[in-house]
Amino acid sequence: MVSGPPAPPHATATVSVRRLPDGGERLDRVAVEEPLEIRIGGTPVAVTMRTPGHDEELALGFCLTEGLAPSSARAPDDLAANTVEVEAPDADLERVARSFYTSSSCGVCGKGALEAIAVEAPRITGGLSVDAAVLARLPDALRAAQAAFRLTGGLHATGLFDLVGSLVCLREDVGRHNAMDKVIGWALGAGELPLAERILCVSGRLSFELVQKAAVAGCPVVVAVGAPSSLAVELAADRGITLCGFTRDGGTNVYTEPWRIR
Amino acid sequence: MVSGPPAPPHATATVSVRRLPDGGERLDRVAVEEPLEIRIGGTPVAVTMRTPGHDEELALGFCLTEGLAPSSARAPDDLAANTVEVEAPDADLERVARSFYTSSSCGVCGKGALEAIAVEAPRITGGLSVDAAVLARLPDALRAAQAAFRLTGGLHATGLFDLVGSLVCLREDVGRHNAMDKVIGWALGAGELPLAERILCVSGRLSFELVQKAAVAGCPVVVAVGAPSSLAVELAADRGITLCGFTRDGGTNVYTEPWRIR
Repeated sequence: MVSGPPAPPHATATVSVRRLPDGGERLDRVAVEEPLEIRIGGTPVAVTMRTPGHDEELALGFCLTEGLAPSSARAPDDLAANTVEVEAPDADLERVARSFYTSSSCGVCGKGALEAIAVEAPRITGGLSVDAAVLARLPDALRAAQAAFRLTGGLHATGLFDLVGSLVCLREDVGRHNAMDKVIGWALGAGELPLAERILCVSGRLSFELVQKAAVAGCPVVVAVGAPSSLAVELAADRGITLCGFTRDGGTNVYTEPWRIR
Repeated sequence: MVSGPPAPPHATATVSVRRLPDGGERLDRVAVEEPLEIRIGGTPVAVTMRTPGHDEELALGFCLTEGLAPSSARAPDDLAANTVEVEAPDADLERVARSFYTSSSCGVCGKGALEAIAVEAPRITGGLSVDAAVLARLPDALRAAQAAFRLTGGLHATGLFDLVGSLVCLREDVGRHNAMDKVIGWALGAGELPLAERILCVSGRLSFELVQKAAVAGCPVVVAVGAPSSLAVELAADRGITLCGFTRDGGTNVYTEPWRIR
């Protein structure tokens, strides 16, 4: 049940490039990066730099993991419009305007105070059990399915897997938070939330923001190819998430809640 | 003239980790990630997730590349306060409040309209000439100097180099935009702007935002270990910047303005 084509045609663009030292000029593909303005009731609430495609899922996942309780999202037929309209009848837009006052960075979503950076999510207590060998295989499965990465070398990915390691949904994006938002937005639309019996696997490093998104989606196991940050480990411990990093060469580092892995 | 120690002691933290499949528990180091609130005249203008250290440089570089014309920055002696106060007498805070309405992502800085994402910067026309062999060596020089990366595997870096490939300033951070902000903030404080005779080298991929920051700092050559995005290439072409990606194995891909490389 892999959902949709992993590499939409508009995910890559062709550019002219000269490889030195030999100096030959040739055509090459790069990952497309374009701004997307997310609106609620016509009011812009966020602009994110993303790879076009799955824009509605991206907007749903973003709004959900920001605590805005979206019900649906609709992008215009022309992707180049770079806008998406979200229905979120219960969102307090005045609070949004106050608290999202700014951010230029991954990971914080412009919250208005240092104390308020965490979006509320219940602690995950589910007692599922995952085979260590399944976890260790996820990065290879993710990379094998990354069509646009193969073309460009420039895209992050998030994969949603079941407990035997089968891929359920894969999304790629120039922004790693966007790739996860797209997967969570897909799950919201497909009625798959919470992700209580699922594993999220990310192609790069694990920041605070990615763990927060997984927590809001209710996912008990998060696996990364790269390193976690200090705050990613702290948040995973606080929310009861099993956090694995440096998942490569047949092994994985388990930072929190190792009891879920057998 | 390498400036300052590249790995402040608060850049890494020790966590307990279990490596599977063998299952042994040991202590390991992760990159520290903490929020930093940037204030102008007491008013919060941004929160970024950063690795503590060089906070004043980070705030200066951020404000400069956001067009806020900072004159100085001051962090409290207690780094754990996670705040920094910037002097920017000419910054229009009302405009800031309007235009920075939100962003959760790298690369866009919460501008209020899709058309307004680019910060103004003059096109770079400087006719300097760089040896291709010098460029090809920069990633190895960057990696060799990355003290905190060696400990954690989890930090991005930006290095500022002169035209013969000597390292002038190196900064590491969990956020790649922060690493570049710290370098540019260092250059501002050291009276080194514009970076007309310098090369910026980044450890990862090149997004729109990183090229925009280099353009505002007046740097004519930007080199990445990883892939550029489509918008990074477009912006570099527009601003007259020589953009190099996939700089590895003794070679580099030149996407724009190859005439500066001999």
